[in-house]
Amino acid sequence: MMTYARHTTLSDVEGLGVTQLDYIHDAQSNSIGALLLHVASVETWYQAATFEGRDLNADEMHEWGAALDLGEPARRAIRGHGLDYYVGRLRRVREKTLAELARREDRWLDEETPFWEGRPANNYFKWFHVFEDELNHRGQIRWLRRRAEG
Amino acid sequence: MMTYARHTTLSDVEGLGVTQLDYIHDAQSNSIGALLLHVASVETWYQAATFEGRDLNADEMHEWGAALDLGEPARRAIRGHGLDYYVGRLRRVREKTLAELARREDRWLDEETPFWEGRPANNYFKWFHVFEDELNHRGQIRWLRRRAEG
Repeated sequence: MMTYARHTTLSDVEGLGVTQLDYIHDAQSNSIGALLLHVASVETWYQAATFEGRDLNADEMHEWGAALDLGEPARRAIRGHGLDYYVGRLRRVREKTLAELARREDRWLDEETPFWEGRPANNYFKWFHVFEDELNHRGQIRWLRRRAEG
Repeated sequence: MMTYARHTTLSDVEGLGVTQLDYIHDAQSNSIGALLLHVASVETWYQAATFEGRDLNADEMHEWGAALDLGEPARRAIRGHGLDYYVGRLRRVREKTLAELARREDRWLDEETPFWEGRPANNYFKWFHVFEDELNHRGQIRWLRRRAEG
């Protein structure tokens, strides 16, 4: 499901240039580029949380903070990049995810920790959430692409 | 995952009135109401496909066609309803899905038929696709809600 979701995300941005990736629809909108980096940043956050049981450190927050939070900081910081930049960052993050998952047994998916509002969540849910967030933003990317090219 | 996706969809439309549900952002946009009915229509389509191995019949297409296809027919036909209307239709469709799934064994999920471009897809993928499409539109609903209320 993660792989399929990513396949559709990448299909939906195929052929986009810098102008479309940087397109800001209105004062509240995130660019397609920022949404792509957000997807990579969420995956990075869940790598730290589930593989190492920790939050992002200061260096990682410096690298990913704007993409994680979106909004005004992301509008200022994330722009001017070609599609290869975003696809490359998505790919490097995913390679680490798949390598880490490959080192674990299926029962790891059932391991629970306190999560949102302290309620227990297992690793299966956490990685489901990574791709459900991606699909949510893929819907926004599709919507924005039609306007960015319009 | 289906249940969680639906929970988030319903949370994201909580409290919306007819004006917001009918809000059309631009000439190409679908309303939040139309997107909610689209979600119910896709689920109805996959009920017919996976539980009965058939397409929607003429009566069902009359009921669901505009919601399935979205765009101009949906902008004309789907409007003026309160949130209860959409939530009720989503609930009735979901009740049937859960009842039908409950009648089947897990191995049914592995049953394959030729699907997109004739490539084999099993029932697990088809029902994954139902909620991945919902999550895609949930992302659009979140985006539209901020503008509809703005």
